[in-house]
Amino acid sequence: MQKIEIFSSNKKKIDFWDKMLTWLKDDFAKVNNVIMDNMNSSVPLISQLAGYIISSGGKRIRPLLTLSTSKLCQYNGTRHVNLAACIEFIHTATLLHDDVVDESKKRRGKTSANNVWNNKSSILVGDFLLSKAFRLMIKDGSNQCLEIISKASVEISQGEVLQLESCNQIDTSESNYLKIIEAKTASLFCAACTVSGIISKIDNCKQQALNDFGKNIGMAFQITDDTLDYCSNDLVLGKNTGDDFREGKVSLPIILAYKRSNKKEKEFWTRTINNQDQNCTDFIIAKEILQKYNVIEDCFLKAQHYSLIAKDSLSPFENNSDKEKLLEMCEVIVKRKS
Amino acid sequence: MQKIEIFSSNKKKIDFWDKMLTWLKDDFAKVNNVIMDNMNSSVPLISQLAGYIISSGGKRIRPLLTLSTSKLCQYNGTRHVNLAACIEFIHTATLLHDDVVDESKKRRGKTSANNVWNNKSSILVGDFLLSKAFRLMIKDGSNQCLEIISKASVEISQGEVLQLESCNQIDTSESNYLKIIEAKTASLFCAACTVSGIISKIDNCKQQALNDFGKNIGMAFQITDDTLDYCSNDLVLGKNTGDDFREGKVSLPIILAYKRSNKKEKEFWTRTINNQDQNCTDFIIAKEILQKYNVIEDCFLKAQHYSLIAKDSLSPFENNSDKEKLLEMCEVIVKRKS
Repeated sequence: MQKIEIFSSNKKKIDFWDKMLTWLKDDFAKVNNVIMDNMNSSVPLISQLAGYIISSGGKRIRPLLTLSTSKLCQYNGTRHVNLAACIEFIHTATLLHDDVVDESKKRRGKTSANNVWNNKSSILVGDFLLSKAFRLMIKDGSNQCLEIISKASVEISQGEVLQLESCNQIDTSESNYLKIIEAKTASLFCAACTVSGIISKIDNCKQQALNDFGKNIGMAFQITDDTLDYCSNDLVLGKNTGDDFREGKVSLPIILAYKRSNKKEKEFWTRTINNQDQNCTDFIIAKEILQKYNVIEDCFLKAQHYSLIAKDSLSPFENNSDKEKLLEMCEVIVKRKS
Repeated sequence: MQKIEIFSSNKKKIDFWDKMLTWLKDDFAKVNNVIMDNMNSSVPLISQLAGYIISSGGKRIRPLLTLSTSKLCQYNGTRHVNLAACIEFIHTATLLHDDVVDESKKRRGKTSANNVWNNKSSILVGDFLLSKAFRLMIKDGSNQCLEIISKASVEISQGEVLQLESCNQIDTSESNYLKIIEAKTASLFCAACTVSGIISKIDNCKQQALNDFGKNIGMAFQITDDTLDYCSNDLVLGKNTGDDFREGKVSLPIILAYKRSNKKEKEFWTRTINNQDQNCTDFIIAKEILQKYNVIEDCFLKAQHYSLIAKDSLSPFENNSDKEKLLEMCEVIVKRKS
């Protein structure tokens, strides 16, 4: 069997994530094993394609949230391992389908799976991983965890469809955007944290705290992600900046820019986003309009707004080194460059 | 809310299915309600697209199997309703993804959902339905049923990938074909019947009988389906005959034909299926080769072989009018024209 280093170190990774991985090393190794065992199939193409996307890096932020919030809850059982793997499987399945839907060429700096293989294989292997995720949940045996994670899975698909509907609609409202990212991203972040509380049998107040923490760190993460697509360095981001712009994906930076634009600029957005009539200099013009209206800074401020809610939501937990790492994560997530 | 007649009568439907629907009328109405409730979403596109495919007819054979085998087990609870709806949701999700993978233009005589909307919506609404299916399962509360249905869901995706790999490979073996249809079709038929036994708490012998019944009627169904694609009338079939041929899908009729072909005919198959180099008369030539080697009749005989196993597998159940209907179903499934 091919040995895949799922949590291998990466020179580009910033210090914080290394620290997290060192902190959670033993648990991560176990999650790694569960992922390896479950992505294997008697059908070689499934193992290859699933292995390709799972081993292609990424910060593993969702399983990391489950493991780290379990530590916060002083959980000392083993259920968090399977649940973390399950959350990562759901996420990976959505990545595979997203790349088909978005016609992406790259994912985390590598050729996307749908481009290495084809759309058909990505769709079907996504279904395989989603079904496997449910089997991992079932193994856990808790109806509450099943309820939480399966609800998130429904919400993700609803969020993705909402996003598809807003595509090429430059006059999408900020509230609609927030609704989309809450469903497609924050719901799984929230589930990743909430299940830790369930298995640790914490009180309602702390449970609510974890729920709020997960949801808000998810919002902060996605806003940052969407903003980086207009200001990061391609090599650091691991995908092409401007992908969202070229696809006509209506995310926060251009929603704000459109609202603030004058008549001529509004025509620019309508042409490039709604009519998808773009030429090679349009992304530069788009970035100039964003700069003119201070949009990037404002987007980061909005991300920080959610990050701060996430931090404060942890107040019911006692201050200790575990909590400090989660608080630091809230900051790192909005300050990252990729 | 749009009222959708999911189990409406259909002039083309042959008598047997009408009889089944009359027999199971009350249960079917309940399954219908569960389907309606669960396919609705706050996102209109999801309700519309899911409603379109769910209301587009079909024999509802999978939920019908759950309901009818529940009757066979003299089950008098209510759990079979949700489970039948769950099975239909999984099936519908795979149809949506299949049509994208196969680039189908038609489904059950109507324009396929991916052609009315687009591939992206079909992928995401498929994910929604699959996630909803799991939520329906969880509602049932039985770990055994969860185990059975989720296992079938994994098997389906494995079967679909195997099928994708055999596409354009005319020298696919008959055993590989059987492995594919067992995974992609028979596994869900099997689950649809097995869960009835679980909720009815029948003995192991009868449980094994239901398992065998479901699996074998599934094999018979798929072989018949694949054969009809080479010999049915387009209007009756509700899709275009020759779709499998044009897509280069390697199903039983052409696997047998290839094995029996002479050198020149083998070259024909290699050109049309492996190289996908087809002209408008090739489907007629393909059917002539099938006729020359008596392939269609042999395929139907093979379907009957499984149908007979399915019938005999029911021997542990006492003879009564419920069992008679299931035995009749085994015959109808292999004698249908659509």
